[in-house]
Amino acid sequence: MTAAEQGPTAGRTGLSRRALLGGGLLGAAAVGAAVGAGVTRATADEPAAPPAPGTYPFTGEHQAGIVTPAQDRLYLAAFDVTTKDREDLVALLQRWTTIAARLTQGQGAGPFGPASGPYDAPPDDTGEALDLPPAGLTITFGFGRSLFVTADGTDRFGLADRLPDALVELPHFPADNLDPARSDGDLVVQACADDPQVAVHAIRNLSRAAFGAATIRWTQLGYGRTSSTSTAQRTPRNLFGFKDGTANLKVEERSAVDEHVWVPAAAAQADSHDSAWLTGGTYLVARRIRMTIETWDRTSLREQEALVGRTKGEGAPLSGGTEFTEPDFAVTGRDDQPLVALNSHVRLAHPTQNDGVRMLRRGYNFTDGNDALGRLDAGLFFLAFVTDPRTHYIPMQNRLSRDDGLMEYLQHTGSGLFAVPPGVPDGSLVLGSDGTPITTAHSPFVGEALLA
Amino acid sequence: MTAAEQGPTAGRTGLSRRALLGGGLLGAAAVGAAVGAGVTRATADEPAAPPAPGTYPFTGEHQAGIVTPAQDRLYLAAFDVTTKDREDLVALLQRWTTIAARLTQGQGAGPFGPASGPYDAPPDDTGEALDLPPAGLTITFGFGRSLFVTADGTDRFGLADRLPDALVELPHFPADNLDPARSDGDLVVQACADDPQVAVHAIRNLSRAAFGAATIRWTQLGYGRTSSTSTAQRTPRNLFGFKDGTANLKVEERSAVDEHVWVPAAAAQADSHDSAWLTGGTYLVARRIRMTIETWDRTSLREQEALVGRTKGEGAPLSGGTEFTEPDFAVTGRDDQPLVALNSHVRLAHPTQNDGVRMLRRGYNFTDGNDALGRLDAGLFFLAFVTDPRTHYIPMQNRLSRDDGLMEYLQHTGSGLFAVPPGVPDGSLVLGSDGTPITTAHSPFVGEALLA
Repeated sequence: MTAAEQGPTAGRTGLSRRALLGGGLLGAAAVGAAVGAGVTRATADEPAAPPAPGTYPFTGEHQAGIVTPAQDRLYLAAFDVTTKDREDLVALLQRWTTIAARLTQGQGAGPFGPASGPYDAPPDDTGEALDLPPAGLTITFGFGRSLFVTADGTDRFGLADRLPDALVELPHFPADNLDPARSDGDLVVQACADDPQVAVHAIRNLSRAAFGAATIRWTQLGYGRTSSTSTAQRTPRNLFGFKDGTANLKVEERSAVDEHVWVPAAAAQADSHDSAWLTGGTYLVARRIRMTIETWDRTSLREQEALVGRTKGEGAPLSGGTEFTEPDFAVTGRDDQPLVALNSHVRLAHPTQNDGVRMLRRGYNFTDGNDALGRLDAGLFFLAFVTDPRTHYIPMQNRLSRDDGLMEYLQHTGSGLFAVPPGVPDGSLVLGSDGTPITTAHSPFVGEALLA
Repeated sequence: MTAAEQGPTAGRTGLSRRALLGGGLLGAAAVGAAVGAGVTRATADEPAAPPAPGTYPFTGEHQAGIVTPAQDRLYLAAFDVTTKDREDLVALLQRWTTIAARLTQGQGAGPFGPASGPYDAPPDDTGEALDLPPAGLTITFGFGRSLFVTADGTDRFGLADRLPDALVELPHFPADNLDPARSDGDLVVQACADDPQVAVHAIRNLSRAAFGAATIRWTQLGYGRTSSTSTAQRTPRNLFGFKDGTANLKVEERSAVDEHVWVPAAAAQADSHDSAWLTGGTYLVARRIRMTIETWDRTSLREQEALVGRTKGEGAPLSGGTEFTEPDFAVTGRDDQPLVALNSHVRLAHPTQNDGVRMLRRGYNFTDGNDALGRLDAGLFFLAFVTDPRTHYIPMQNRLSRDDGLMEYLQHTGSGLFAVPPGVPDGSLVLGSDGTPITTAHSPFVGEALLA
């Protein structure tokens, strides 16, 4: 056991994470070990302490960060796997699982060494979140199609026979202008938190733990969640200045979430490959949608509202009522034209116009500086979790790309589709003597059913 | 008077900003006009309401956003002036002043039109902050050297004889790797707030109001302020994982702020040009400092602490004590080497090593995605306000660039120096009938003493 593994627990007990680092590793008195929510104790049997405020369990039937009420900030990274060795991939996922379990409970990324004493090795944790609370951090992992089979058909890790039918190559949608450097990836990690520094810290430490096995392909920072995912949340606004996600699937709608988000066992039975590993998981659709802000800002309020199909202030459908009034697509006004225009976003995206399918949207606004003409590179980083992208995303996006009047002000510049496996079961993580998760050759990991 | 100018006041009275937009412009009942803090009423004489929580006065002897306790988020934009007409420049600064006064008080950017009715013109405000509180927003304006005289000596706006001697071209420092597209600019606008969406909204609406007069040259988003500027604030951490700004000038140190931040009247007397317009102002040094995160993360804790000169956990100087213990540069350890190394950052940056000069640092961490090799493009966006960059920045930066061991892990990739004029006097803004600031041909503006 290394010195680091003997260190005190941080975070959830009200201790600063600092105790995990530097002098604290050796110098601080050991305190009663506490265990993160959803993590059971392997070496002691006191009851686990209740989770700290702003702490979500890491383990469970499903991964966190999906039905978790959307936090305010996002940092998402897609990775290319650089190793050709399946064992290295497994080891990476083991390390990631342990680190994610620790970070989400407010602990540092360690213990991972240092093997030769704390001062003559890099610190276990990079440190910039040492004094910060867990801030509602969730970390969610997913697998891209290229992990299973490359574009030229190579089966890199012996996973081709596990490729779910629904993990398709997304079609080219009208008006797509995708940058390959902002698209796809073998692995994806979504970190959401109420403090961007906590989310960035998480991705940085996971990226660090990927050294030699995977490298970052692209990343996206987001702020101002653009969808409510809970009835307890106020509807936020996107950078068009409109409320976004009024009709979003809410986590309180349990049966709708079951129907539209999670992959059912029946999907595996119908699959041409062995995709049972994904039962209880979901699919993540990620689309970087740049808005032509400057053009939009010169558009009249009448035009803006007509394109969206809702009022800008209240967010009420143009057919009348208040924000949560259902749009009436039949009611007409002058010249017998529908009040909610045929090419309006709210009409084209509405479940009644899309065979009843719904998505759990969990997107964020982004602002990535400006282009050479001084125009903001800003927009909506669309994230949605769906049970099957073939039924729950592609048809609607084809319709929107073709007919939505808003598309004149939108450009899809990045894209990814990822299979998100179910969670790591409660009580399965391997814990060190201090009660916090550690990595061993037998550590469970996110996606274990795929790679086992 | 336009319809918009007759609209109700929003924000500070507890009304949503929404009332300023769309149907609210015409539909909402007028409410008792309220006036932003620091803004006096021209058309009514009730006492101004107290400022809402998280609202800082816009007007005053100095601009806000300097000694204001550092907010958590930054969006900063540098602009190129595109007009050649001095009158257009004045009009831009008038519009910016009014908009900034409104936004910082939680109001929308309007009233600026719409001239032909609210529905058939673009909305006064872009809308994405409609439901958000003021969030401590401050907006701070500055002027780059190129506004006074271009590199080839052109006097663009008849301002060459107003160029302060201290508004120099910064020298090339050792290890600079500046990107012109991230450097300089005729104008700078610093928006700080506790909510990034509020800061982005501010820059966007100011940028919109610059149409035809100026365009964005570069922008920088920042989070996790890297300096405390008040004794009431906890010392934050930079992306090296170390506490940053422990010894920063604090706003409570009034006489030190007077000495090291504000431009005294004596400066104008000694100036070779007429720079009296800047008395009571300051200089803003902006440096985008990329950190080679991945290399740093593989460095031993011993090495990291030696380079910084402080412990990573507590932030105490290596000469002993706790975070706020003054470093003892004389005390030695093994081999008679000083415990705080000669090339340590804390030693080289310390006032005692820099003729006693101090800076009001107000920087932020940044993460701008990743480069083609998957390395984080992240670091510290250094912002400092100083009374004279020739005494308070350049000598120290020369020393740091040459000798600081940390420089191995740093690269300066962007740079700007701006003269920050004093504030718009309390009570000077022109107010509409609803008591909120409006722009007229006689509006006062930030920098009026320069351009009048």
